Amino acid sequence: MSRRGERPSPETLATLPVAIDAMGGDKAPGEIVEGARRAATEDSIPIVLVGPPDLVGDTGGLELVECTEVIAMDEDPAGGVRRKKDSSLVRAAELVRDGKASAMVSAGNTGATMASALLRMGRLPGVVRPCIATPLPRLGRSPAVLVDSGANSECTPAMLVQFAQMGAAYVSARFGTESPTVGLLSIGEEPTKGTPLVKETHYLLQEAGGFEFVGNLEGRDLLPSPADVIVTDGFTGNVALKALEGSLRFLFDAMLGVFGTNEETKGAADVLLPYLLPMASQFEPENTGGAMLLGTDGVCVISHGSSNATAMANAVRVAYECATRGLVDHVASAVLPVQEG
Amino acid sequence: MSRRGERPSPETLATLPVAIDAMGGDKAPGEIVEGARRAATEDSIPIVLVGPPDLVGDTGGLELVECTEVIAMDEDPAGGVRRKKDSSLVRAAELVRDGKASAMVSAGNTGATMASALLRMGRLPGVVRPCIATPLPRLGRSPAVLVDSGANSECTPAMLVQFAQMGAAYVSARFGTESPTVGLLSIGEEPTKGTPLVKETHYLLQEAGGFEFVGNLEGRDLLPSPADVIVTDGFTGNVALKALEGSLRFLFDAMLGVFGTNEETKGAADVLLPYLLPMASQFEPENTGGAMLLGTDGVCVISHGSSNATAMANAVRVAYECATRGLVDHVASAVLPVQEG
Repeated sequence: MSRRGERPSPETLATLPVAIDAMGGDKAPGEIVEGARRAATEDSIPIVLVGPPDLVGDTGGLELVECTEVIAMDEDPAGGVRRKKDSSLVRAAELVRDGKASAMVSAGNTGATMASALLRMGRLPGVVRPCIATPLPRLGRSPAVLVDSGANSECTPAMLVQFAQMGAAYVSARFGTESPTVGLLSIGEEPTKGTPLVKETHYLLQEAGGFEFVGNLEGRDLLPSPADVIVTDGFTGNVALKALEGSLRFLFDAMLGVFGTNEETKGAADVLLPYLLPMASQFEPENTGGAMLLGTDGVCVISHGSSNATAMANAVRVAYECATRGLVDHVASAVLPVQEG
Repeated sequence: MSRRGERPSPETLATLPVAIDAMGGDKAPGEIVEGARRAATEDSIPIVLVGPPDLVGDTGGLELVECTEVIAMDEDPAGGVRRKKDSSLVRAAELVRDGKASAMVSAGNTGATMASALLRMGRLPGVVRPCIATPLPRLGRSPAVLVDSGANSECTPAMLVQFAQMGAAYVSARFGTESPTVGLLSIGEEPTKGTPLVKETHYLLQEAGGFEFVGNLEGRDLLPSPADVIVTDGFTGNVALKALEGSLRFLFDAMLGVFGTNEETKGAADVLLPYLLPMASQFEPENTGGAMLLGTDGVCVISHGSSNATAMANAVRVAYECATRGLVDHVASAVLPVQEG
């Protein structure tokens, strides 16, 4: 079912639309369609929505590829993709596979998005398992990325080495990072610390090429990360990422609570908020452009389930930029087969 | 080498001193001795310092148990404990074992602290492996605790069930929590999500007694935690805990940077800081009293390596309170042998 024939050139990809799962996400279709419309009008990005016309409703003038099914947010991913062959997610992935779209974007069921992309676009040659790369903000610098942030609960050392290679290719393509640095998430700097998976991966990363391995990092190094790419298994990565999200939200809420204490604090907060909000916005998932699935033969952006129009517009921009910069070619070249220890 | 004979009663423990590793921590001995002195004078807690007299220097009038060696912060824990039988850490653990101290406290080498406690005090009957419980702040409520936050990189389901039992006993003894609730750290609410370890543990926790199992929690639930006890393996727990620490520090620093933008923001910050600092102090490790080793036959508090006098005084208070409330008896009663799946 995977891609047949040559991958389109970046020039061709620039002319193809980004396929958007109009029914994916907690705020679909309203905010999704609105975000797509913004990316189309403000950035002249070619767009095609995918969804059942009666559910999508007004497309705001955007083209709609019609289908009949939707995979729900809480539906079993593998089963949903297997049963719902005419769902918006599966059809969006097929558009990329068939050279009719440059990339797909969904804020829907994360597992089903991955499964659709994997089953329809296929894996790049040599890739053991695709992974998810999620940006981690660094104030005043391009973000770092965390790989794998949730695709694979169970990993081998060889998989983690490939995540590093794909992550490095991604930050090069997306942020123009030259000579990307890679760190391995562990519980101490020493190569002897951590699980057997981490210890073996540490050794393999020292031997691997394509990036500069800076050694082990710890949880406290995630914000701001000293390395451009932080490698971990998808279980640890998902827990760590959500811990960061949760703690930042907790602290913002606590701060806002303090600001509302009395008239004096409210007045002082009015002075500070215009300065604090731009800083805080760098931490908002809606401004980071979503997570990128790496290792499939086509670009797939996984946007936050809570995505609003701003988040969707940013995700579409990231998808379009990465597709037209030849992200998939970069990742394909970066992945080297690794012998397991 | 472990405890001989009966465990001292809470009444006896209240008369015994807390043994403090005077040479443990980045700021030892100065801040450690000062913190010990404060706990002694302000709270009338009986104290004994342990360390080489020439290195400890002025004890501020506190009793010193003399020894000749110190295990360095970066020394191999197992090797250090094996070789340095007259080190401050090993001797502190022996004082607890021999019924001459109610508890031990160290801000030194975490691995060596655990190894000293484990090898000298011994494990409680039936305990597969001790674990570390670290408090997670909940504004306006008693903290939750994360177990294991770093003692065991590799865990079995049976170990995680015991961590839950020991964590529940700890929050009962320390915070007076009745009917503690326990959550399992995973990457989704569904019992089918996560690693094989998590899936098997989920099943066992549903069957286990001694607490109310509320199901899986995610990284974003750590602050504030809906459960009194969050159970995970020591690798994930350590990464998550340090991720929280790092993100809170990152955001505070970013906020302080914004406050210093100009005269107007500085003025507004002067109004807000008296309200923000008490809130922020709830997140400071120095105010949480350190982490507790659970499962050893004696109380052992592991204070942050960066502990100052305040942190040490709080750690001593926690150690004394837990010892005199019979924490070890509570934990011993809570741990049930579990059949592996």
